[in-house]
Amino acid sequence: MPLFKKIAIIGVGLIGGSIGLAIKKKKLAGQVIGISRHQRTLNLAKKIKAIDYGSLDLKAVKDADLIIFAAPIETILNLAPSLSGLISKNCIVTDVASTKLEIVSKLEKFFPNFIGAHPLAGSEKRGIDFARADMFKGSLCILTPTKNTSVKAKKEVALFWEKIGARTTQLSAPDHDKIMAFVSHLPHILAFSLIGAVPEKYLKFCASGLKDTTRIASSDSRLWAEIILSNANCPQVIDVFQQNLNKIKVVIKNKNKELLVRILESARRKRETIV
Amino acid sequence: MPLFKKIAIIGVGLIGGSIGLAIKKKKLAGQVIGISRHQRTLNLAKKIKAIDYGSLDLKAVKDADLIIFAAPIETILNLAPSLSGLISKNCIVTDVASTKLEIVSKLEKFFPNFIGAHPLAGSEKRGIDFARADMFKGSLCILTPTKNTSVKAKKEVALFWEKIGARTTQLSAPDHDKIMAFVSHLPHILAFSLIGAVPEKYLKFCASGLKDTTRIASSDSRLWAEIILSNANCPQVIDVFQQNLNKIKVVIKNKNKELLVRILESARRKRETIV
Repeated sequence: MPLFKKIAIIGVGLIGGSIGLAIKKKKLAGQVIGISRHQRTLNLAKKIKAIDYGSLDLKAVKDADLIIFAAPIETILNLAPSLSGLISKNCIVTDVASTKLEIVSKLEKFFPNFIGAHPLAGSEKRGIDFARADMFKGSLCILTPTKNTSVKAKKEVALFWEKIGARTTQLSAPDHDKIMAFVSHLPHILAFSLIGAVPEKYLKFCASGLKDTTRIASSDSRLWAEIILSNANCPQVIDVFQQNLNKIKVVIKNKNKELLVRILESARRKRETIV
Repeated sequence: MPLFKKIAIIGVGLIGGSIGLAIKKKKLAGQVIGISRHQRTLNLAKKIKAIDYGSLDLKAVKDADLIIFAAPIETILNLAPSLSGLISKNCIVTDVASTKLEIVSKLEKFFPNFIGAHPLAGSEKRGIDFARADMFKGSLCILTPTKNTSVKAKKEVALFWEKIGARTTQLSAPDHDKIMAFVSHLPHILAFSLIGAVPEKYLKFCASGLKDTTRIASSDSRLWAEIILSNANCPQVIDVFQQNLNKIKVVIKNKNKELLVRILESARRKRETIV
């Protein structure tokens, strides 16, 4: 028996489309419907069998027993009030946004069975064209329950992610956002800043180092502006990075080779732990 | 007929070993000898047929008609004076170091047929174990001739790199170093600084973004300390980056979404040109 009768995915892009493909592959729902602002996206999602049915109208979520917001942060915040009038109290609602504090504090007011989720998967590519059924296989999905989160939402959303191949863990929304500011949002800010700082005429001399360090600067700019601005930790985390870079700059200016070797070696060892 | 009778490679690591493999594959030399401080490296280089003969003694370069320095910068600068007494005036000498101004200005005093070279290839991996015959295929090799460089050195070293699969171009040593400060040394400094700034306990939550932006922080720390310190442009290039990052931080602090989107979009478009 499928876990859910009807799952609605709001936003059928890279992540929403991949969730749809994974649900269908694992037969986790009687029916999967997709909501998008673009008919082309819905047609493509249906063609690749990420959804059974697509709609431009939010009302199509009626009767869903699981709703997954896979849209940009502001879209989620904008749609939540109207959605709350369309669904039953028993419906489980979750999302996949990259920052959690704002989304969780607002959405749990609208939905009695809400839990925030953040699958650590995806890529700099954008849109349903890059969706894959195995996107979440072996990845980590962070759930951010609060004291208000229902046992039902917590249990069923965790099970859902595990069924589509992710490991799950729980963090508070503030802890989640602080950690992501360091391990995800800061690297994106630096990648955008780095490519911005390199004179265009020098780019033809770039090798794999610059390519790798700036790959994520190919990410969607509006999506990332929203993510960065919705995480209140970003300015402080940039400060921490700037202090560290300043320290290294002083060592370089002083030509203190042995100290520089020690700093780089300590960074190298830390990096090795995540290979 | 091979291009050279006897090529000596001083330093048989990732780059020196790959050069040896490529020479042997393309049959560019009657004999290839490798010089290293470590017998194990020489044994391995011989075993994988990167060299015909290995020696711990620099004197083995005698009679070479091409000598390639593929050692760290300080090692090259230390060995140059003793090497100059061991070889004929006709011998062509080149190197593969990542910064050029210091090496070129010093080595052209010792060797009448010297030209600096920098193949834009390699990886964060280190040592002969990772050497590959096709390391330079399709890559760019920058030659840095001066007004003192002999026509013979310029012509034959360019031909050599082209024969092992690289395209060649010429830059002055100061231009080379300025460009590399932006497209290679700055990304390395930032990768080391970024991983240094992330609290260790958060690393288990890292996804592909942090992994990619810090891959090059796995590079050898002593080698990179020498590269960074030998490029006098590094402090100034860090300044340029810091100004750009500061600008972005102010926009984030002011929550100026439309301006942030424009800055990220401009970076994204620039990044797309190097994909």
